[in-house]
Amino acid sequence: MSDQHWILTAQCPSRLGTIDAVTGLLRQHQLYVTELHSFDDSHSNRFFIRACFNAESALKEDDFRQQFSERASEFEMSWELRPADYKPRVIMLVSKFDHCLNDLLYQYKMGSLNIEIPAIISNHPDLKELAGWYDIPFHHLPITADTKPQQEAQIWQIIQESNAELVVLARYMQVLSAEMCQKLEGWAINIHHSLLPGFKGAKPYHQAYEKGVKTVGATAHYINDDLDEGPIIAQGIDSVDHAYYPDDLVAKGRDIERVTLTRAVRQHVEQRVFLNGNRTVVFAQ
Amino acid sequence: MSDQHWILTAQCPSRLGTIDAVTGLLRQHQLYVTELHSFDDSHSNRFFIRACFNAESALKEDDFRQQFSERASEFEMSWELRPADYKPRVIMLVSKFDHCLNDLLYQYKMGSLNIEIPAIISNHPDLKELAGWYDIPFHHLPITADTKPQQEAQIWQIIQESNAELVVLARYMQVLSAEMCQKLEGWAINIHHSLLPGFKGAKPYHQAYEKGVKTVGATAHYINDDLDEGPIIAQGIDSVDHAYYPDDLVAKGRDIERVTLTRAVRQHVEQRVFLNGNRTVVFAQ
Amino acid sequence: MSDQHWILTAQCPSRLGTIDAVTGLLRQHQLYVTELHSFDDSHSNRFFIRACFNAESALKEDDFRQQFSERASEFEMSWELRPADYKPRVIMLVSKFDHCLNDLLYQYKMGSLNIEIPAIISNHPDLKELAGWYDIPFHHLPITADTKPQQEAQIWQIIQESNAELVVLARYMQVLSAEMCQKLEGWAINIHHSLLPGFKGAKPYHQAYEKGVKTVGATAHYINDDLDEGPIIAQGIDSVDHAYYPDDLVAKGRDIERVTLTRAVRQHVEQRVFLNGNRTVVFAQ
Amino acid sequence: MSDQHWILTAQCPSRLGTIDAVTGLLRQHQLYVTELHSFDDSHSNRFFIRACFNAESALKEDDFRQQFSERASEFEMSWELRPADYKPRVIMLVSKFDHCLNDLLYQYKMGSLNIEIPAIISNHPDLKELAGWYDIPFHHLPITADTKPQQEAQIWQIIQESNAELVVLARYMQVLSAEMCQKLEGWAINIHHSLLPGFKGAKPYHQAYEKGVKTVGATAHYINDDLDEGPIIAQGIDSVDHAYYPDDLVAKGRDIERVTLTRAVRQHVEQRVFLNGNRTVVFAQ
Repeated sequence: MSDQHWILTAQCPSRLGTIDAVTGLLRQHQLYVTELHSFDDSHSNRFFIRACFNAESALKEDDFRQQFSERASEFEMSWELRPADYKPRVIMLVSKFDHCLNDLLYQYKMGSLNIEIPAIISNHPDLKELAGWYDIPFHHLPITADTKPQQEAQIWQIIQESNAELVVLARYMQVLSAEMCQKLEGWAINIHHSLLPGFKGAKPYHQAYEKGVKTVGATAHYINDDLDEGPIIAQGIDSVDHAYYPDDLVAKGRDIERVTLTRAVRQHVEQRVFLNGNRTVVFAQ
Repeated sequence: MSDQHWILTAQCPSRLGTIDAVTGLLRQHQLYVTELHSFDDSHSNRFFIRACFNAESALKEDDFRQQFSERASEFEMSWELRPADYKPRVIMLVSKFDHCLNDLLYQYKMGSLNIEIPAIISNHPDLKELAGWYDIPFHHLPITADTKPQQEAQIWQIIQESNAELVVLARYMQVLSAEMCQKLEGWAINIHHSLLPGFKGAKPYHQAYEKGVKTVGATAHYINDDLDEGPIIAQGIDSVDHAYYPDDLVAKGRDIERVTLTRAVRQHVEQRVFLNGNRTVVFAQ
Repeated sequence: MSDQHWILTAQCPSRLGTIDAVTGLLRQHQLYVTELHSFDDSHSNRFFIRACFNAESALKEDDFRQQFSERASEFEMSWELRPADYKPRVIMLVSKFDHCLNDLLYQYKMGSLNIEIPAIISNHPDLKELAGWYDIPFHHLPITADTKPQQEAQIWQIIQESNAELVVLARYMQVLSAEMCQKLEGWAINIHHSLLPGFKGAKPYHQAYEKGVKTVGATAHYINDDLDEGPIIAQGIDSVDHAYYPDDLVAKGRDIERVTLTRAVRQHVEQRVFLNGNRTVVFAQ
Repeated sequence: MSDQHWILTAQCPSRLGTIDAVTGLLRQHQLYVTELHSFDDSHSNRFFIRACFNAESALKEDDFRQQFSERASEFEMSWELRPADYKPRVIMLVSKFDHCLNDLLYQYKMGSLNIEIPAIISNHPDLKELAGWYDIPFHHLPITADTKPQQEAQIWQIIQESNAELVVLARYMQVLSAEMCQKLEGWAINIHHSLLPGFKGAKPYHQAYEKGVKTVGATAHYINDDLDEGPIIAQGIDSVDHAYYPDDLVAKGRDIERVTLTRAVRQHVEQRVFLNGNRTVVFAQ
């Protein structure tokens, strides 16, 4: 743990002493805090904290974990401790559209999205070559109404076998079953091609065109029991005018979607995002 | 008409020769076009044009109007010709909130909103002093469920007697009757305190809070038979995060509302906005 | 101190234990932290912290101050403790332009800018009426090359007699003397009508026009020995195009200036801004 | 020319009748104008026009060109007529950084950047594989102080042999010779990693860090005799705060650069950009 950067995140019910429970132990172990954000939500009565620190001493990680664990249970805290350069394993689900996947993979290769990608799964073969370019295993799992349960079982198996910590639906054009949604609740990020709670249903950009909107947007959110309505992480938006026909809106939307999804995934990976009931707390950079 | 700046706007069904009908006559009368925008909407099959020009010759306005009128009727054009510094008469409807009115009046005084304001009408007395500061007649027309028809009749009378060309609902917290909406269709601008088609109904910012949105917005639109759903002129938006409680969202919203409404009114006044069915065409600066 | 919201801010050289010095004492006094942000700048080697807390106990403010004072001196901390609803006394310096002053006064009246304004000082009489509308004492202190030292002495006297805690140069078109700048260093906010380090010198919008820029901006900053180059608090920007002549840029600039200055003043007043050498740390909402 | 979409652009000295010279002939040939923008710059005394039209008749392109050519020479117009789906041949110059090239190539593959890329030229071999992935010939032309003239001669030869119509310096980290700049003046787009006229010289993001800016930006511009100071096409910007160290600003800058350069190239390719002395006219979508 020497000379390393760490990120500690925690949340628990609101109570006196929550911050001190974290900062006190960090201090006790001579850990140097470089950045700290806490928020106590008076609406949900929950406390959230994210602390970045450097460890220059030779403290054993195990000791710290054990001691913090005791404090945490006293406060009913859920918490995570990770090296700042920890790379979570992220599974990507896609269909035919490559704009989101392309951006995620590029940021991944650049090192500006600090993740491992053990697998890309698609119900279509189209993006196999793109996955190959980045040396990532590609699983083509076609789906029909009849084979949906089996296909989802296969997806789930890959997720489990790769010890995935996050699933990203990068324009995966299938509706996941309620059961699958439940399994992925809170650790799968979807991109909704509209500014929730805006246009729902099919062809949101065509709906937007008919409505004559002057802005279009997209929403990245965790999935919960409702695939398209979970807690919002990030929203992106851009201006349009009368000269944008539906196809132009779709093109504009693609740009917003990829930027918004990548931002949300980065925020999640950097442990800036906390679930807070139907909402999120995001300590932005 | 000598040495003056003019703006000519027109719209009509799509047809070959529409632009030439405008530019040809301008040329014929030695009028110097400084800026021209046209758009032919292949969805609604309508043509829109806005031309700014200088008149250095001594042409009589009447002659030009008559000749253009002939061409226009041939193309079923509706059109307007105005000096660029023409100040339309605008009636403001308000209740108690002053953030939108304050901004409109300030821009008006600065000369950056080129209008006359023959009257400010309110169902509350609160903004009388503000109107007085800007030397604008203030009409306090209280309203109850019983007196609504009479109050609207009074409003309508003021609108008519002042020859108003535009009505601005600057956070007028009353629902206009269907009849009043119909009368004002296409020439009254309302500010909807949400990014349509987002949160409808009461307390949109509280709804936004519950939903955990990361952006809030406002929509300026013409009223039609539906007070809150007419053709959109402008939309404003800003980012928020988890630390915005409902009151903070309301405060943020106020800033977006006033900026968005003022922008829409300015665009209307500069004759940049055209009704296009349920949508608008806006030739922005 | 019971049932009140407080804000505690501090900065000091980087050192192990800085956060704990703050949070530990807050905990000890049963003070409930609702929001905390800290940042340790590895470039300047300085630590910054802002903590919002509620006091439900009956602790005397004096006791807390004395005890914190001891810790603070150990860490060479400079710090401030204020009720969250504390209204600092702010002096406004203006000339003829009213766009910045108008916005500041409006936000002040609305209660969204939590300040007292003991005086508005101007070298021109033009804005006397505006000050009167808001019931604020207006001091007309004309200036010539010869009377500059005396005029500045008068300004300084007003600042001192009113116990001002902040001076805002809301488009005060005079260059303050080096001596005056020194006196106000770090507690006077100026608005530079350009996006520093952009166009300097006279007529920045005309320079911007000649350069053909596609964006214009403004910078709110503390003044230091250089009136126009002190630590930046906030920057605003907007898009323009070829159709913006210099006058249009000036008008656009006015809108950016007022929004940017108001934002910077609000951030200062909410104790979100820390001086950090030639830079600032701003814990934004 | 039947059933095709065309774009006609022209510019000439300001003079009465310029628009009519264009629209009149379009009308005469039964060409259907779908969108038209004109601007007459009273500062440079030049006129600019962009007309999109559909040709449903069987008119020969040659006839139209010849007739328009006559009118154009009367007005000293320079002009271009192209099918809307015309793909100009664009040469990319790069070094080691791939963020700009990657985005340009992706948009190219998607069809949202309507170009041919006959060659990518680099002074380093690093991006050869990326070029290969998109099946584009890659020319590795290393450079030393001694070989600069020869290397530029090779670049020039490739440009000429491929009949390139546009050169894009997608983070080409070499300073082109004055001679080369002259040859490319007005038809080579460079990305400057700062918001001109902001930080010049080396390491602009480090300069920005020292200055403590709250925004960073990038500028896409044509090169002229000064490689880094030609007419601006597009500028991009984003917010940063105190927590961005120089490396973070560089990463943020990369995102702005790629978006801004791609936008400028698209605007150029869609014939929306006109040179206007040291400035540009850009008829944006």
